Amino acid sequence: MKGTLIGLIIAAVGTVVGGFIKGVNPVVLITNVPAILIVIVGGLGATMASFDMKATTNAVKSIMRVVFPKPLPDPAESLEKIVDYANRARHEGILSLESDVAELEDPFMKKALQLAIDGNDPDAVADVMRTDIRTMKARHKVGAEWCTSYGIFAPTFGIIGAVIGLIATLSHLDDPSKLGTGISAAFVATFWGVFIANGIMLPLANRMKNMSAEEVAGREMVMEGVLAIQSGQNPRVIEETLLTYLPPHEALALREARAE
Amino acid sequence: MKGTLIGLIIAAVGTVVGGFIKGVNPVVLITNVPAILIVIVGGLGATMASFDMKATTNAVKSIMRVVFPKPLPDPAESLEKIVDYANRARHEGILSLESDVAELEDPFMKKALQLAIDGNDPDAVADVMRTDIRTMKARHKVGAEWCTSYGIFAPTFGIIGAVIGLIATLSHLDDPSKLGTGISAAFVATFWGVFIANGIMLPLANRMKNMSAEEVAGREMVMEGVLAIQSGQNPRVIEETLLTYLPPHEALALREARAE
Amino acid sequence: MKGTLIGLIIAAVGTVVGGFIKGVNPVVLITNVPAILIVIVGGLGATMASFDMKATTNAVKSIMRVVFPKPLPDPAESLEKIVDYANRARHEGILSLESDVAELEDPFMKKALQLAIDGNDPDAVADVMRTDIRTMKARHKVGAEWCTSYGIFAPTFGIIGAVIGLIATLSHLDDPSKLGTGISAAFVATFWGVFIANGIMLPLANRMKNMSAEEVAGREMVMEGVLAIQSGQNPRVIEETLLTYLPPHEALALREARAE
Amino acid sequence: MKGTLIGLIIAAVGTVVGGFIKGVNPVVLITNVPAILIVIVGGLGATMASFDMKATTNAVKSIMRVVFPKPLPDPAESLEKIVDYANRARHEGILSLESDVAELEDPFMKKALQLAIDGNDPDAVADVMRTDIRTMKARHKVGAEWCTSYGIFAPTFGIIGAVIGLIATLSHLDDPSKLGTGISAAFVATFWGVFIANGIMLPLANRMKNMSAEEVAGREMVMEGVLAIQSGQNPRVIEETLLTYLPPHEALALREARAE
Amino acid sequence: MKGTLIGLIIAAVGTVVGGFIKGVNPVVLITNVPAILIVIVGGLGATMASFDMKATTNAVKSIMRVVFPKPLPDPAESLEKIVDYANRARHEGILSLESDVAELEDPFMKKALQLAIDGNDPDAVADVMRTDIRTMKARHKVGAEWCTSYGIFAPTFGIIGAVIGLIATLSHLDDPSKLGTGISAAFVATFWGVFIANGIMLPLANRMKNMSAEEVAGREMVMEGVLAIQSGQNPRVIEETLLTYLPPHEALALREARAE
Repeated sequence: MKGTLIGLIIAAVGTVVGGFIKGVNPVVLITNVPAILIVIVGGLGATMASFDMKATTNAVKSIMRVVFPKPLPDPAESLEKIVDYANRARHEGILSLESDVAELEDPFMKKALQLAIDGNDPDAVADVMRTDIRTMKARHKVGAEWCTSYGIFAPTFGIIGAVIGLIATLSHLDDPSKLGTGISAAFVATFWGVFIANGIMLPLANRMKNMSAEEVAGREMVMEGVLAIQSGQNPRVIEETLLTYLPPHEALALREARAE
Repeated sequence: MKGTLIGLIIAAVGTVVGGFIKGVNPVVLITNVPAILIVIVGGLGATMASFDMKATTNAVKSIMRVVFPKPLPDPAESLEKIVDYANRARHEGILSLESDVAELEDPFMKKALQLAIDGNDPDAVADVMRTDIRTMKARHKVGAEWCTSYGIFAPTFGIIGAVIGLIATLSHLDDPSKLGTGISAAFVATFWGVFIANGIMLPLANRMKNMSAEEVAGREMVMEGVLAIQSGQNPRVIEETLLTYLPPHEALALREARAE
Repeated sequence: MKGTLIGLIIAAVGTVVGGFIKGVNPVVLITNVPAILIVIVGGLGATMASFDMKATTNAVKSIMRVVFPKPLPDPAESLEKIVDYANRARHEGILSLESDVAELEDPFMKKALQLAIDGNDPDAVADVMRTDIRTMKARHKVGAEWCTSYGIFAPTFGIIGAVIGLIATLSHLDDPSKLGTGISAAFVATFWGVFIANGIMLPLANRMKNMSAEEVAGREMVMEGVLAIQSGQNPRVIEETLLTYLPPHEALALREARAE
Repeated sequence: MKGTLIGLIIAAVGTVVGGFIKGVNPVVLITNVPAILIVIVGGLGATMASFDMKATTNAVKSIMRVVFPKPLPDPAESLEKIVDYANRARHEGILSLESDVAELEDPFMKKALQLAIDGNDPDAVADVMRTDIRTMKARHKVGAEWCTSYGIFAPTFGIIGAVIGLIATLSHLDDPSKLGTGISAAFVATFWGVFIANGIMLPLANRMKNMSAEEVAGREMVMEGVLAIQSGQNPRVIEETLLTYLPPHEALALREARAE
Repeated sequence: MKGTLIGLIIAAVGTVVGGFIKGVNPVVLITNVPAILIVIVGGLGATMASFDMKATTNAVKSIMRVVFPKPLPDPAESLEKIVDYANRARHEGILSLESDVAELEDPFMKKALQLAIDGNDPDAVADVMRTDIRTMKARHKVGAEWCTSYGIFAPTFGIIGAVIGLIATLSHLDDPSKLGTGISAAFVATFWGVFIANGIMLPLANRMKNMSAEEVAGREMVMEGVLAIQSGQNPRVIEETLLTYLPPHEALALREARAE
């Protein structure tokens, strides 16, 4: 799960060290105020205008969750826990799970089991869990779309920044010695535009989409399991059903372990 | 909801201030008549040719509604109002809602309830409301497509402007001192093309698409609610049904409030 | 409906006047034979190779119909006429429509009603009309695809033209004074490629797609109406059904007029 | 059907003549060995790596069939023939068709009828024909995808060629007089990349997609017809059914001829 | 199946030899440390950040499998083997297959038959095989997406590398003699970006997608066949069913051989 942070660092270090060997001090890039105003602020404005205000706040949170992810509950472990609970609930009643639930770390499974233990109507339990999953999916989707938008706008504002730099430089050719420095500075905007998009925003958007599918599948498995426990299903049948929610290689490993 | 205007202003201010520090007076950009004729007028012509005349008029209105949005009715509030009306209508009859309806601010809910109170056939009420929603959706869609078109054509006319500027400059190299100014002026067209697209039109198109889904969902909830009131349904059942129209996080909040 | 022609003229005038102020005589663009051969003829060849010969002939006709459109029958008017005919046919028999039909301007409605009056089997009438609509849709689709293809190929042949111009210019640097003129001429190909695509072909393709949906909906409404008249349906019911074919804002206007 | 060859020739002649007037001898383009190695061979390698070996052999055949097409059987004629055979088979038995079949030019119709006359089980006949059509469709699809791939890779190898040319030229600036010639030669790679894509491969891919739909529809009509003959259906009903396979304008013409 | 390796070699040799004739020593490209750090390492980082860590490990394995493919079992041969086993199982019982199975080379067919011979429940056998196929599909899909991502990021990091090179070169114009070498070196990053994408990653991604469909179809045929053997179906019926899994031209060949 730490892959995102490691990847972003590799991309940044490769770029900075490569540029440094080439003779470009990163400080030159970071202190180019016009480039940063046009590309980073301008591109941010265009992205903000594309969504409502909440989306921007949520996007920042989504980025944090992708870069510094809380460990997701391991689906194989969740499956085993649920089958275990199902066995217990069948023999000793669902109330016997109360103490274990209190110690659960996965907040979603905890909430779902608690609702079931509290004797809520199964439909009501399902409604709460389903809405919870839908909320999460919607939040992930907006986060990914926001990052994609920034990743699309950034390079175009990079072009705007470069063009403005060229306009400034070329309209004052009195001192040709400044031509090189001027064009050089103009390209800093291009750098920022392409880097923010491809070194940061687009990888984040990709990761958000990939992670969302994983997290949703995990929660759907838990939901299905808790509802099955509540309805008193056979633990073997529950195991069979939940296996289809696992990533295929884990399902295969578990199935074969069982077949032996 | 004001996010669009704020975003557009941030994008414009970032670009203008960044350019200013760089040494490009915004006046130079705005007074470049050929660039403005080719990019803004030319791109507008290509966009107009892509649609019928009404679409262009509607697009202007759509832009106004996105930049200066009237506050949308809060869906959670609408839901509560409808459940409240449903309770009243059940006990005192639908005619008892007449005075409240007169004071409603949401024009869509007002019209729908009025039609129901006036004793119209439920199918006829549904028809009017459904057509109203379809009209709105179609208007939003054309608006978003119009802005997207302009956002696609503008940078290409920016290239046309730049190329024409280069043709003009390079064919008269007698006075090399004018080369810089000429190329500099040619790039102003590129600036306008990329900025109109990415600083204005594409964010507007994005926002229109996002806003439309929200507004349609709100109206569909109201429609469903009014039809349920008219048919005398149980207010609890109505609440359950309408909850599925809410954005998931609000539905979750309401559901949990109720579960306590 | 004239929007297309007006839009194309605005795009062309904006570009030409902008270029003229800039110092580029349009004659220079139009008399650049190599650019025209490579971009306009070359791009046309690539487009022709993408389709069979008939498609190219049809595309020219489609372009004419979009630029100089015959006025489409107004759907609201068609609806009223059909409801009117339905009333008459119900009371005086379908043969009583014969004289009116002879004066109809809309050729599709005329043909459909004539087939019905002539006592053809309703299925046969439907078949002819349906095939007529399918023919029209297919013709529009090929027209739009042809223009889109030209709009995609033109800028690439613009690049070919510019590259050939640069090859020619750069390989003879004996006389540096010709460098400017040579590069300048090379860019004329770029201009033509981008302009033919974005100033002409892509707006035409967009308009064809938008117009087709409109025209098809109009004819489907007429077909449904004529078949309903032939089967002797209640005029009120016919009106209800046909309303769903109208553009939503017109349907809304008519519905509300009726509701009053 | 010859449109493809004519279109390709127009595209090539427009480009070559345009370049010639401009002063670029086509020999210069064709004898630029590095450009040809990088763009044509390199792009071919990338395309070959994208598919298995058979696809490349098939693609060459597909290109031949599109550029020098065998005339497709005219669907209207096929329809008339089938209705004619259906009449005969009904009155004189299916064996009476044997001599006509021997003279048929359309190999697909010939094979299908022969299978039917030989007394094969209708399901078996249908299986053979269906698999034949699927084979053809799959072959066309791979052909079109292969050409599209080459059309996408060619310009990117054109960029590689140009960049390599620029690296070579710019790293030896001792003799500035060679700068022009070097850059000029570098652009030959760009020319080849863009021309192979847009003057050859992409039009071929487009044409393959368009032709495939046509040829498949023709064969499906024949299949349906032969199966109907075998099952002894009424020739009038067969005609009705087959009409729906015709391109709409031909169906319309035939229908109206019949309606008179 | 070796097409991928051959294609990649052709693309690389074409590019290297072309560049060599042009005067670019490949050593210059390979020893350009900044270009390699920015493009290859930077692009790799962005790709890694887009997926979880496992995806990157899997992608390397997927690349190996595509470049050095183990020969896939020939579907026609598998079909014949299965029909042969079905005949034997029908007459001598499924246990009689035990010795043949031990010698099978295709691991998937071996595992499936062994499960059937061991007397497992057919549903359990199907589950294991289906999960095995799903695992393979998922692994192929992630591999192809990973390569596509690298193929999209590489050219953008190529632009970053070139821009950084230009910034470095243009900001030190004291010694104009270094301008050429500087720009030349900057373009090496562009070369690497475009070549890694189009000479390596995108062809690999294409091939993975094409190969996956083929391999999945082969395994699905085997699964269907083994399940049919286990349920004691008629070998003729089994053959009929399995034929629909073959690539159409092979199915056609087999069908026609049989029809004779």
